Amino acid sequence: MARRSGRRPGNPDTREAILAAAREVFAERGFDGASIRAIAASAGVDPALVHHYFGTKDQLFVATINIPFDPQEILPQIAAGGMDGVGERLVRTFLRIWDSPAGTAGAALFRSAVNNEWTAKLFREFLVTQVLRRATGLLEIDPAEAPLRSSLVASQMAGLVMVRYILRIEPLASASPDVVVAAVGPTVQRYLSGDLSRLTEPAGAPDRPVEPAERLPGTPEQLKGR
Amino acid sequence: MARRSGRRPGNPDTREAILAAAREVFAERGFDGASIRAIAASAGVDPALVHHYFGTKDQLFVATINIPFDPQEILPQIAAGGMDGVGERLVRTFLRIWDSPAGTAGAALFRSAVNNEWTAKLFREFLVTQVLRRATGLLEIDPAEAPLRSSLVASQMAGLVMVRYILRIEPLASASPDVVVAAVGPTVQRYLSGDLSRLTEPAGAPDRPVEPAERLPGTPEQLKGR
Repeated sequence: MARRSGRRPGNPDTREAILAAAREVFAERGFDGASIRAIAASAGVDPALVHHYFGTKDQLFVATINIPFDPQEILPQIAAGGMDGVGERLVRTFLRIWDSPAGTAGAALFRSAVNNEWTAKLFREFLVTQVLRRATGLLEIDPAEAPLRSSLVASQMAGLVMVRYILRIEPLASASPDVVVAAVGPTVQRYLSGDLSRLTEPAGAPDRPVEPAERLPGTPEQLKGR
Repeated sequence: MARRSGRRPGNPDTREAILAAAREVFAERGFDGASIRAIAASAGVDPALVHHYFGTKDQLFVATINIPFDPQEILPQIAAGGMDGVGERLVRTFLRIWDSPAGTAGAALFRSAVNNEWTAKLFREFLVTQVLRRATGLLEIDPAEAPLRSSLVASQMAGLVMVRYILRIEPLASASPDVVVAAVGPTVQRYLSGDLSRLTEPAGAPDRPVEPAERLPGTPEQLKGR
């Protein structure tokens, strides 16, 4: 899983103590605010030992939440072809991980993030700093648009997890990767690279009353139900 | 709502007290760990009264699931304008419910469905029979395509719940309804009415090796990362 092959696991108790301390510090201070020094102090060990067991702060964070893939390894693969076709590459890679035995660990993390405020914080922090920010950087997405674009992608992918792996609603639960990629890939592609003209807050919103005509091209009859 | 027509509602205060106690006990102990006896004790009534008002523990739970909208009321409003603009109408109505105090009940249900296999079953059953099937019927969607189309819509909406209301990832967590409708509406629209030529299992799939050229218009370089 998150542990690198070739790295000695070390004393399991020390390892666990460091992980427990890291979870607490990352959740309390966020990824950017957390330091190896603070984590080491909280675990009662030398910072060098933290580095020895887990490598960099990024790697420690990945180990902390037991995510079934390493973003530093996966994201460059997805971004390699540039913006063209990135939606389909992302969905296909996502399915390859989640359809594999690693998906079980992913589902456990998802469940935990939904029900535990503290895990939710850690998971959000992980998603934002390790996945979304890194992905939009690799894809050279306009930093002004990147947060909304990437949180939209996160919404589609989280919902895919929910329907395919947690609720298991058919036929999406057992659809082949090809079908899912063809259906969901274009959604992700649009969120990452589609026209953003309507993806920013209108001036004065949300206080300004919005005219129905600005909102959508529907007829007054169609607008009644809102 | 979940209350059966034909069953006398009884004293509304007692009924509400039982429901409130049931929600608490179910949330604290899970369905399996909760008992009618414990719920009755928490509500300060006799267990027989709980059975009298709600029937079995299963039926009581269905009543407490308290979905924050009545599909029979909401869906016809969304479907009223036909397929044109239905994606935006659906997202706007969804946000109106979830952004309201009713959203709290929705989030509780979502959390419960993620962590309790039994609630997940109940929730899936509810979604499929009361929401998805009904919606695709109202919209007169080809029954052969309806299940996949509606499970795709469910995936986007479930993910919106996850990112906006559970994980609260910004800026989607506090984006105005207009921004969310503009971003997500077209996704829902495409899932409901978009071209389906690639939304069905290819003949012989998933055993047949799929040629890259069939899957997407990418170059071999772009395909490498998959």
